[in-house]
Amino acid sequence: MLRQYSDCAMPLLEKALIAQIRRMARSERRRQADGSVRPTRTAIITGIGDDCAVLRLLPGYESLVTTDFTLEGIHFRRDWHPPESVGHRCLARGLSDIAAMGGEPVAAFLSLAMPRDLPQAWVGRFARSLISLAEKFGVTLAGGDTAESPNGVLADIIVVGKAPKGKSVLRSGARPGDRIFVSGALGGSAAAVLRMRTKPKKKVNPRDYPRHFYPEPRIELGRIIREKGLASAMIDTSDGLSTDLAHLCEESGVGAELDSALIPRASVGKPAREVDLDLALHGGEDYELLFTARPGKRIPSQIAGVALTHIGNITRPRLILLRGPKGVAYELGSKGWEHFRK
Amino acid sequence: MLRQYSDCAMPLLEKALIAQIRRMARSERRRQADGSVRPTRTAIITGIGDDCAVLRLLPGYESLVTTDFTLEGIHFRRDWHPPESVGHRCLARGLSDIAAMGGEPVAAFLSLAMPRDLPQAWVGRFARSLISLAEKFGVTLAGGDTAESPNGVLADIIVVGKAPKGKSVLRSGARPGDRIFVSGALGGSAAAVLRMRTKPKKKVNPRDYPRHFYPEPRIELGRIIREKGLASAMIDTSDGLSTDLAHLCEESGVGAELDSALIPRASVGKPAREVDLDLALHGGEDYELLFTARPGKRIPSQIAGVALTHIGNITRPRLILLRGPKGVAYELGSKGWEHFRK
Repeated sequence: MLRQYSDCAMPLLEKALIAQIRRMARSERRRQADGSVRPTRTAIITGIGDDCAVLRLLPGYESLVTTDFTLEGIHFRRDWHPPESVGHRCLARGLSDIAAMGGEPVAAFLSLAMPRDLPQAWVGRFARSLISLAEKFGVTLAGGDTAESPNGVLADIIVVGKAPKGKSVLRSGARPGDRIFVSGALGGSAAAVLRMRTKPKKKVNPRDYPRHFYPEPRIELGRIIREKGLASAMIDTSDGLSTDLAHLCEESGVGAELDSALIPRASVGKPAREVDLDLALHGGEDYELLFTARPGKRIPSQIAGVALTHIGNITRPRLILLRGPKGVAYELGSKGWEHFRK
Repeated sequence: MLRQYSDCAMPLLEKALIAQIRRMARSERRRQADGSVRPTRTAIITGIGDDCAVLRLLPGYESLVTTDFTLEGIHFRRDWHPPESVGHRCLARGLSDIAAMGGEPVAAFLSLAMPRDLPQAWVGRFARSLISLAEKFGVTLAGGDTAESPNGVLADIIVVGKAPKGKSVLRSGARPGDRIFVSGALGGSAAAVLRMRTKPKKKVNPRDYPRHFYPEPRIELGRIIREKGLASAMIDTSDGLSTDLAHLCEESGVGAELDSALIPRASVGKPAREVDLDLALHGGEDYELLFTARPGKRIPSQIAGVALTHIGNITRPRLILLRGPKGVAYELGSKGWEHFRK
């Protein structure tokens, strides 16, 4: 691990950047050590600079591990996404997986391969944005790998989180009769992709599509849902509602019925307008939380400033149905997640 | 995590492969649960099929985490390396990092991006070889990510290991006067690369260069070194002796003096011949263990069937010197690790 951080072929600025990452990781460790004689919950004992990072959790916690690729031409395009957005989304994908377990993120590891002709400023902006998001959630960048890429920017983010033992919220706990809730609003990220695809020459302002360019992982929401025992099952909406609900139902061995009128649709663009139902149902990368709650469990209309909407119910037959405006229900196919491939 | 395992664009055989990986992970969990009421040391509570994998270590252990890229055209070439070798080397790189801490591997996560035109048989052979090495070391493949690759096969392996708290062997513990040891023999992997580079048309038989095509991570050796408290510092030789010794010395704030006559050189090819000193000093990817031992600490000539050789000593001046056959010492530059780039 990290041995290629000292690869001779590596540009100087990048070496400096890695040294900076390392200093940050170190100051984080010192802060923990100073704050209390014994770290309260987690400690990164050894970060960047050894063969492995060494992590300790206090007894009573379990580790959560998730990995997510961010590949140029597949998950982003350099002509569409500023480097800050790519760095942010790279880490946000992993953090969202931790949120979906009700966990708290602890450490991140970045494997990053860069083509020889990548402007050094791009790497700096990418890394600073990623590190800034990490700091916001108290996550230490504890290691990773770097390499030369044969083609395009290739990143793989690994996030390690924690949750009290046996308390992680799984996908498999939904039962017939449970209600289905989703946080925030859906389709906002896919709306940006659609806009860029249909008008590729016209620059999109990231501020008009924040859920696409700078998605906010729902860490606090997920943690509160877990602490209060609100959810019987949970997943994040990374592939799109139809696909992610299908994953949750498959793991739980159940079906679902959604009400199309209840699906919260994102407002995007300038002037702002509500996205079509199709985007809200199938568009990926919103990174909202989709969860189920037992009958009678009171679910607030919002938690940590994020709206929660009751969009349907879990059923026994293993089908996912969508009830339309006239009460007619049809089977909702999983249309899956859209790549950025040119 | 793993949401793309159900990506619609994914070829059928690959879906079957992932289902197989998942079944293996499950049977592994069952075996642990049946063997004892409470898992003895580690448990994979939730593997493939949720947003994160959930891992538990018993109190008294710390987690080790390492990540390593394996990129086509950089770390391997499809015309040089059979898929079994690529899968084996991909996981072996991560396992070797765990060995270098004196740790025991627990779980692996594979992020794998494949180009559209990759033959399905290639993926199957790659994955079976990787899984077979994982099983050999009791490692559960607990998750990962898959994606379409814009260009070439891209893999990132994450290995999570464990060691008793505070017992991981770091790079930073070497002190002046310590002796330097290396396991096995060096230069064997680089000799294969040199051979393929100089005679690219002539097929190399992997059996003539086993340390290149199927390196054996020194897990057992590393664990025994840690248990017996033999090493003051340790690293694996992935970048080559000169570079890895420089890493160890840098982290420890010391220098070193090696004796060129003592460097164990690998025997390769058919008929077998000893590699040149230059390859033994600078050739990467041997995945042997390089460690230091306090004066007076008895180091056996072999452990777990692997030879250990005293090759030099740690010095106070922060220089790495190589003493030649006539007693003349010159400074040893770090020539680093050679990519496969075409």
